[in-house]
Amino acid sequence: MQCVKVLGGVLGAAALLGLGIILGHFAIPKGTDLPAPSASASQDLDLEILEAVMGQLDANRIRENLRELSKEPHLATSPRDEVLVQLLLRRWQDPESGLDSAGTSEYEVLLSFPSQKQPNRVDVVGPAGGILFSSQRSEENLTGEQGDPNVVPPYAAYAPPGTPQAVNAAKYGVAGVLVYTDPADINDGRSLPNETFPYSWGLPPSGVERGSYFEYFGDPLTPYLPANPSSFRLDSDNASGFPPIPTQPIGFKDAEVLLCNLQGASAPAAWQGALGCDYKLGPGFRSDGIFPAGSQVNVSVYNRLELRNSSNVLGIIRGAVEPDRYVLYGNHRDSWVHGAVDPSSGTAVLLELSRVLGTLLKKGTWRPRRSIVFASWGAEEFGLIGSTEFTEESFSKLQERAVAYINVDISVFANATLRAQGTPPVQSVIFSAAKQIRAPGPSSLSIYDNWIRYSNRSSPVYGLVPSLGTLGAGSDYAPFIHFLGISSMDIAYTYDRSKTSARIYPTYHTAFDTFDYVDKFVDPGFSSHQAVAQTVGSVLLRLSDSLFLPLNVSDYSETLRSLLQAAQQDLGGLLEQHNISLGPLVTAVEKFEEAATVLGQHVSALQKGTPNPLQVRMLNDQLMLLERTFLNSRAFPEERYYSHVLWAPRTGSVATFPGLSNACSKAMNTGPGSAAWAEVQRQLSILVVALEGAAATLRPVADL
Amino acid sequence: MQCVKVLGGVLGAAALLGLGIILGHFAIPKGTDLPAPSASASQDLDLEILEAVMGQLDANRIRENLRELSKEPHLATSPRDEVLVQLLLRRWQDPESGLDSAGTSEYEVLLSFPSQKQPNRVDVVGPAGGILFSSQRSEENLTGEQGDPNVVPPYAAYAPPGTPQAVNAAKYGVAGVLVYTDPADINDGRSLPNETFPYSWGLPPSGVERGSYFEYFGDPLTPYLPANPSSFRLDSDNASGFPPIPTQPIGFKDAEVLLCNLQGASAPAAWQGALGCDYKLGPGFRSDGIFPAGSQVNVSVYNRLELRNSSNVLGIIRGAVEPDRYVLYGNHRDSWVHGAVDPSSGTAVLLELSRVLGTLLKKGTWRPRRSIVFASWGAEEFGLIGSTEFTEESFSKLQERAVAYINVDISVFANATLRAQGTPPVQSVIFSAAKQIRAPGPSSLSIYDNWIRYSNRSSPVYGLVPSLGTLGAGSDYAPFIHFLGISSMDIAYTYDRSKTSARIYPTYHTAFDTFDYVDKFVDPGFSSHQAVAQTVGSVLLRLSDSLFLPLNVSDYSETLRSLLQAAQQDLGGLLEQHNISLGPLVTAVEKFEEAATVLGQHVSALQKGTPNPLQVRMLNDQLMLLERTFLNSRAFPEERYYSHVLWAPRTGSVATFPGLSNACSKAMNTGPGSAAWAEVQRQLSILVVALEGAAATLRPVADL
Repeated sequence: MQCVKVLGGVLGAAALLGLGIILGHFAIPKGTDLPAPSASASQDLDLEILEAVMGQLDANRIRENLRELSKEPHLATSPRDEVLVQLLLRRWQDPESGLDSAGTSEYEVLLSFPSQKQPNRVDVVGPAGGILFSSQRSEENLTGEQGDPNVVPPYAAYAPPGTPQAVNAAKYGVAGVLVYTDPADINDGRSLPNETFPYSWGLPPSGVERGSYFEYFGDPLTPYLPANPSSFRLDSDNASGFPPIPTQPIGFKDAEVLLCNLQGASAPAAWQGALGCDYKLGPGFRSDGIFPAGSQVNVSVYNRLELRNSSNVLGIIRGAVEPDRYVLYGNHRDSWVHGAVDPSSGTAVLLELSRVLGTLLKKGTWRPRRSIVFASWGAEEFGLIGSTEFTEESFSKLQERAVAYINVDISVFANATLRAQGTPPVQSVIFSAAKQIRAPGPSSLSIYDNWIRYSNRSSPVYGLVPSLGTLGAGSDYAPFIHFLGISSMDIAYTYDRSKTSARIYPTYHTAFDTFDYVDKFVDPGFSSHQAVAQTVGSVLLRLSDSLFLPLNVSDYSETLRSLLQAAQQDLGGLLEQHNISLGPLVTAVEKFEEAATVLGQHVSALQKGTPNPLQVRMLNDQLMLLERTFLNSRAFPEERYYSHVLWAPRTGSVATFPGLSNACSKAMNTGPGSAAWAEVQRQLSILVVALEGAAATLRPVADL
Repeated sequence: MQCVKVLGGVLGAAALLGLGIILGHFAIPKGTDLPAPSASASQDLDLEILEAVMGQLDANRIRENLRELSKEPHLATSPRDEVLVQLLLRRWQDPESGLDSAGTSEYEVLLSFPSQKQPNRVDVVGPAGGILFSSQRSEENLTGEQGDPNVVPPYAAYAPPGTPQAVNAAKYGVAGVLVYTDPADINDGRSLPNETFPYSWGLPPSGVERGSYFEYFGDPLTPYLPANPSSFRLDSDNASGFPPIPTQPIGFKDAEVLLCNLQGASAPAAWQGALGCDYKLGPGFRSDGIFPAGSQVNVSVYNRLELRNSSNVLGIIRGAVEPDRYVLYGNHRDSWVHGAVDPSSGTAVLLELSRVLGTLLKKGTWRPRRSIVFASWGAEEFGLIGSTEFTEESFSKLQERAVAYINVDISVFANATLRAQGTPPVQSVIFSAAKQIRAPGPSSLSIYDNWIRYSNRSSPVYGLVPSLGTLGAGSDYAPFIHFLGISSMDIAYTYDRSKTSARIYPTYHTAFDTFDYVDKFVDPGFSSHQAVAQTVGSVLLRLSDSLFLPLNVSDYSETLRSLLQAAQQDLGGLLEQHNISLGPLVTAVEKFEEAATVLGQHVSALQKGTPNPLQVRMLNDQLMLLERTFLNSRAFPEERYYSHVLWAPRTGSVATFPGLSNACSKAMNTGPGSAAWAEVQRQLSILVVALEGAAATLRPVADL
């Protein structure tokens, strides 16, 4: 899991601080290819096979996978990362339980590492130049794993080197940035050693969250091109998206020493935390504190950019009937440290699911209707790099043939409830799967019935349903949905939000995210891992095996109507003042709704009749390709990879179509006839054309 | 037919002339959507039906179509253009011989017209201000048609208004441009009235070639968006691609008066023509000529930009088996004047072919396997506007489903031989059709055997074959191939080049392009029209009805290899000096060749076996989508719509991949490490990725 979208907020806050200490309250978003002649063109989902798969997914095997995967730190491109590449290959090439074929693809990508010779450091320097305080260079060795020589010291990847010292230099007068996670935000306020790991799931005082501070995703030097050795590369001086000033993360124990000794006005209430003092804004230390007057904070960052070879591992089960339709299921492999939760909890599930399906395959019991592609991505933590390079390299093939992408990164944040994000067409298949499986725990509820108790919304069509979240850019689904327009989803088990306000599991990206942490505190017994494996397995089989693709495209109608209503309510008046009509957008949404309704009737008719294989294929092509119609590569020229007109990042305050919302927000304070108002009109036209194109794809195929 | 790509040359030459007269030697480049349950999934091309269609295509009906179509001038959006819209609709909705459905779509587009109140004029003004000479405002009324009040006076569409008078003002000191066509270039030197129409096919001395001087194609105000009434429009002041200075075409009779009285140095030999004098460069008139010293040329241009409604007419025959696969066949409808040759010779063929197919359809004798879409485009002469707006509006649907686009604009330039342009996958189907049909004329050769005598090349694969030309941007195929990546072709009958060096038929875009002109001089008896109808009919049926799509994608191997060899021979040394290796490109071409070979074996195996319908569909999808894989919307950011990495415009001198050729040509004189050399590397990477993507699309679909 990767925190790209956090950065705006973090740097924004940083900009307000003259001293360059940041109150880092992260808001995490965080072979042969012919069907066997005997394969029947009407092959459909086999409920017995589905039941068998559900039954064979084994919590204990997931636990053993996790133990192996998280045994050592496996930072992207490290020797242990390569060992895991071989482990995945071995599993997927196993003659008893492997896939039809598996292989690796390697990219030469720009990563960022701290210097081994010159560790990054944060010091307080007295007026005479003496060092009065130094931050911890590594996390305390509480359970043994933190002492592993392969633990990468805490750092902010892609932050430039430099040694600023309380100087006001950069854009808003910030010379360097320190980031920490406050116990108020991560530990429900607890901060004492005996209240935290290994005594509870809390973050120990020395825990430091690593992360990538690159603004975009993909290899920074090869935007839109796969990072093959021969590919054109930008000079790293010309590459964009790196933080402008040195940045370093520290633990809250060290942050306390700095923050609680600051002078100046009190920070706003929202910035206060649980370190036991009133947080001040500085600049400078208070005279009654531990540092003499004139002391300054010195931040030394020695990060280096390095070209490294990062591997993806890919495996495929060839479809029996439609091998040219791909259901993709992936997770990243690389971690910041041991990465038991992130990402190995997902990889442990991935391996168990591929084992169960591989075994059925090798026994000859089953072969899916469509091809299933399994993926283990490299270098996700640095910016979704492996998955992005894959989409760049396989752009045409995926655009032609990919049915859906399933992502399971962290599979279990906590063991209260399912959490799913996705685009509307995948809602129904996730619901179907969730209704079929029993939730872990003492209740006898289904995953669906349990889920709806924790997170729900009122749908105008269905009534009360679980809430499906939208997809940001927090994991490897981002290039699939935003760059390629492939219907995507992300699935996990997560918190009871009434019991914790932790923004994410507390040891996220620290050296405390270990096997024992998961085994003791996150999911003892691994029943939530098993529940995720079953949910994903069911979704995967439904997508790969159903005669009719279980993508309910008409669920987009509800989304479009709600985005439209927001535009009408919150922007209608403003637009009217500028003689911009929402009429064409209303018409386009209506056309979509109508086409979706007619298509729904067509689906029902086909399902009741005895459709021939081509009729089903034609319908399925409409369902598969709908998501593609929302792409416009010219819509957002400043947003790298983002081309989905419904799910591009929204910075405007109105929760409507992102292009419209953002353009209105920029135009709002400009005069009539400004370029910003022209951009509003351009965005509206782009949207109308996309929605009309989407409706056209859903309409009867011989309509003019 | 439209002369977009001419302009570079013309304006280039203009730049050399201080006086602003141009030696205009144009180098012309120039319902329900379900298959009936009874439709068999194995439905294939029926040779009896094909023979029947060939036999029913009637030269005399084509002649009568042409008479009606060219009866009056039908400039885009004129009342007569709208009458023809209704004529097409009536024909395509005819209960006995019409299509399944037909309709119009209207766009609001920016056109350019001369002022009716203030005619454009070219005068010679004496030193005292008196007018000594005026160019003809209209063509002489030689056959009656030229006197029609609806003949638009000669003008250069989109040239800005202005009244320059021998002043040096614009970039190269040119204040205005006069364009004429020299008898040396259009009439094989003949220039006397009794040597030209109506006594021969030659251009009369008063004939003036109209044309669009817009640099791009599509509606100038709505690039990349369909020009619907509500669409975002650029201010016409912000629109780009219009000529910068007033421009006016004149006849060679008027040009002679100006040119033969110029003084100054002699123009280069290549600029000399057949007006019977030595062409001088000016500036100023010679003292022993007809104009007194100090006389100047005054050009008055009063063109106006106007938003007009232009219609496309579309009709469809629904496919019986795969209605979601479209074979498109179109021509434009609008002409500059009567447009008997351009475009009505093509529309006359289009109507005859739709009648024959429509009759079979309505009788219940035949329904194609795939859908056939017929199109009559509007406002082509102003810049391929109707077709471009259609591709913008239907982008997703066409990208998903279009098998091929067939264009027949001018169907008969002359009656010597077939001429075809297209991308490599369409070569084989055109050859198959051409082998089946007898060439018009006394010989008993097939069209193919006749063609090979006029235009041939030695193919490393096939030996001597007719030459298939490449597609520029001279007609409505441009947006289909360059913007959408749909395999496209343009078909016509044309000259014996040993008998004329006319760059195009002489009355092109003049008021002399009339029915009688065609009937007497271009194709008496209309047998060449019939031959084109048969060729196109056969290509169309083969594409719409064949079980296996007759797109021979492996013919791209030959093209790629030849482009690669040119790069190696003519750029290899230069690239090596700059440490740029062609190795990855060589590998990519080899991968393509290998994938194409393996696919070819797969096709043979399937054709010999008893493939199921989905196996055939999967293969056909590979064939259909190959062309799409060559698109990269980010490859040529400055070239509007061009995104096909093989067929984008080439300005570099080396006849290789356009992006590479152009980038090398710009980099050649810059130092190592320049941005221009980085662009060479970027273009190479774009090309390699596209070719590898193309190879991936051809490889077995379950290959990783």
